[in-house]
This record gives sequence, C-alpha cells and structure tokens, in this order.
Amino acid sequence: MATATKGEFLYEGKAKQIYATNNPNQVIIHYKDDATAFNAEKKGSVQDKGVLNNEITTLIFNYLESQGIKTHFIEKLNEREQLCEKVTILPLEVIVRNVIAGSMAKRLDIEEGTKPSNTIFEICYKRDDLGDPLINDDHAVALGAATYEELEHMYKVTAKINDLLKEHFLKEDIILVDFKIEFGKNSEGEIVLADEISPDTCRFWDKNTMKKLDKDRFRRDLGDVREAYVEILSRLTK
Amino acid sequence: MATATKGEFLYEGKAKQIYATNNPNQVIIHYKDDATAFNAEKKGSVQDKGVLNNEITTLIFNYLESQGIKTHFIEKLNEREQLCEKVTILPLEVIVRNVIAGSMAKRLDIEEGTKPSNTIFEICYKRDDLGDPLINDDHAVALGAATYEELEHMYKVTAKINDLLKEHFLKEDIILVDFKIEFGKNSEGEIVLADEISPDTCRFWDKNTMKKLDKDRFRRDLGDVREAYVEILSRLTK
Repeated sequence: MATATKGEFLYEGKAKQIYATNNPNQVIIHYKDDATAFNAEKKGSVQDKGVLNNEITTLIFNYLESQGIKTHFIEKLNEREQLCEKVTILPLEVIVRNVIAGSMAKRLDIEEGTKPSNTIFEICYKRDDLGDPLINDDHAVALGAATYEELEHMYKVTAKINDLLKEHFLKEDIILVDFKIEFGKNSEGEIVLADEISPDTCRFWDKNTMKKLDKDRFRRDLGDVREAYVEILSRLTK
Repeated sequence: MATATKGEFLYEGKAKQIYATNNPNQVIIHYKDDATAFNAEKKGSVQDKGVLNNEITTLIFNYLESQGIKTHFIEKLNEREQLCEKVTILPLEVIVRNVIAGSMAKRLDIEEGTKPSNTIFEICYKRDDLGDPLINDDHAVALGAATYEELEHMYKVTAKINDLLKEHFLKEDIILVDFKIEFGKNSEGEIVLADEISPDTCRFWDKNTMKKLDKDRFRRDLGDVREAYVEILSRLTK
C-alpha cells in the first residue's frame, strides 16, 4: 500500500489530531496522550495512551472489518498514527449498554452493575457546549443529524458490532459493559464506523475480578490507568 | 349515572388530589389551584385554576372519547371534581412537540418557535427526585416502566390525540405547540389516557398574536395567568 504523505493540520479533538494527506479522501489520525472526562471538566494525560489506543483501535477495527463491518480504517502507519478514509462525522454518539454503569446508572438511579433484560441503545447529540445531551430519534431528525433510515442503519450495524465485540472480549475474560461509537459519511455518501474503539470509549470489566480496565480508572482516580490499557492490549494480542 | 360517594384520601399530586369512592374501580380527582414549575422549585397558586382545569379537561376528554380515544374519565361531579376510572399510572410522561419550545429548545439550543419537519415524541421517566429525566424506549423497558408493545400502543394513541387536538384547537385560532400526557392501566389491564389535558400540561399559542395561553405565563412570570386559562376555556365553549 502506498505510504501517505502527511499534510496540513485539520482538526484537534480531545484525544486525537487529524491531518490531511496527499489523497483528498484520506486523513492521518494522530493519537495523543491527553485524557479528559466529564465533558472536559477533568483534564490530564496518561503516558503512552495514544500509542496504546492506536494499537487497540487498529486490532479492533481490523477484526470488525474481517467480520463485514465497514469502517474508516485503512492502516496503522506508526506508533501514534493511522491512515483512515476521510469522513464527515455525524454529530451523534451511539452508545450501547450491556450492563448499567456511568451516566445511565446516575441519571436513572440504577445500581451500577445491574444487567438489564434488554440491550440498551442510546444516542447523544455531539455538542460539547450542551454537554452531549441524550436525545431520541425524533430529535436527531429534527436537528438534521441523521434521517430515520440512517438511524436504522446505524442501530443495525451497532447491534452487530456489539454482538461481535461482546464475544471477542469475553474470550479474553473481559465483560464489554458499554461503549460509544461514532459514524461518518465517506465521499460516496456511505455511512461507516469511524473514530476509535478503545478503553477511552468502552467500559471493560475483568470477568473474574470485576476490575475496571478502562477510562473509569482516570475518571474516578482509581490509579493504574496506563496498566489497565496495557492489560487490554495484552489480552487482545495474547 | 349513580352518584359516587367520596371515600378516603389516597394521594396528593402537585395539582390534584385523589380520593377513593364506594366503587373500588373508581376514584374522585380533585383539582387544586396550586401551581408548580421547574420540578417544584417554583411554587404558587392561580385563583380558580382547579375549577378551570377541571372544566377544560372534561371538555377535552369528552371530545377525545367521542373520537374513539379510551380515557379514564367518567364524568364531572362538581366545580373541582371528576369521577374517573381507577388506574395505575405508568411512570412515564409522553410528550408531543409540534413546535420547539421549553426544555427541548433549551437542551438542544434550538430557537423557541422553530417548526421541525417531523413531529417529536418524547418520554420522560416520572421521578421527581431525578427531575423527570428524558429517556428512550430501551430505558423504559429496562426500568420496567412499560414493554415495547405498550410503548408502541402509547405512541400510536398519542399521535392520534395530537392530530385530533391540533385540529380542534386550530379551529379556535390556537396553536397546540406541545403537550404532556400520562397513561394508566385499568383493572382489566387496558392502557388508557389518564391525568389531565389543560393549560397546565399543554403549550397553547394564539395563532394571530402568538400570545402564550398556558402555564408558561406562570413559569416565566408573564402575568395574566388566570386570564389565559379563562381564554382557553372560553374558546372551547364558544
């Protein structure tokens, strides 16, 4: 595969930077060590997080691609960078919850760790200044964030991703508690999985010890943040 | 129709009291003048509000019944009281928005008065201590508030109520901006429209002057609160 030439800086997010390349349909995503939580009220950094999340996302996106999920991912370029298809991110976070934790436990007064009878899908409107509020499909359509057909497609793909990843992680004795994904529209108008899937965007609990192996260690000051990310990577590559 | 005998006090809500009757399947609902807003952070009272809302709800529920909507309403007993079927209220508020206003305008940074291309349906979890948070169908099912089939039924009935009431009020030059309804399960397990429909639970704007004719006059200290409720009643009875 031809090596991409890194072009101008395009955009900086909380944990990543995006650069143009010599191909107008491709970008380079650079993974930073910056960590934020609670809508960036808490800021910090985790040593090597960018390196670890680049590697973990590469493994997961390659696995999902092998199972028929279309993603923006093309190839890992180096420790902190990956080449991806250039997409327009839909202003939605799609969240799946297999076990109740985090914001849902708090908002609805449900004990963290409760296993619901159904799988819970949520969408949030990506607007930092509004705190990424929970919305429903009617809101998303009214906001012009997606059409009903696009939402249906995203829920279907998200359900498949959940089935694949739950099983994939359970093989390594990890419970996939919940995760957040984002979708983007490529130059052909196709909606594909974008952003990242990593301990920054998932809750992972060790099946045997229930130890948290994700960004909650940073959010809640539990310590051993880097070690948790290393543990996830090591289980995925063992 | 046999007159019901008022029995023991059962429950007090923000704007109504419920009493038992000599019939175990019937209750008497007493409409108070108390007014609250912003999850009861703001409290007050509006002279005659109970009398006006009892009369307005009676007119609207009778109209909806005549159009095939099943409700808990049996008959108006006196100025402040109505006889209703005893139901178990589902812990959900079902909201319909034809025009964006109130909490949706604020949460999603949309200008009040914006007309969306789609009709917006919302459900909130009735829990005062949590601020009646917005939820989606998956949350409602996980909470045990309703099944997917019950939700589908409620949305269908709610859409019909919206169509009926939009037209009914527009004939009187009133825009039905949004409204909140509640459903209850009767002794036969049937889900029927319950609670009230009044300027406490709807936003009504005069079609020509855009004057607010609802509880927003109380919420936002716009004055002429009682006069707005009187105006709604007078247009419904003219």
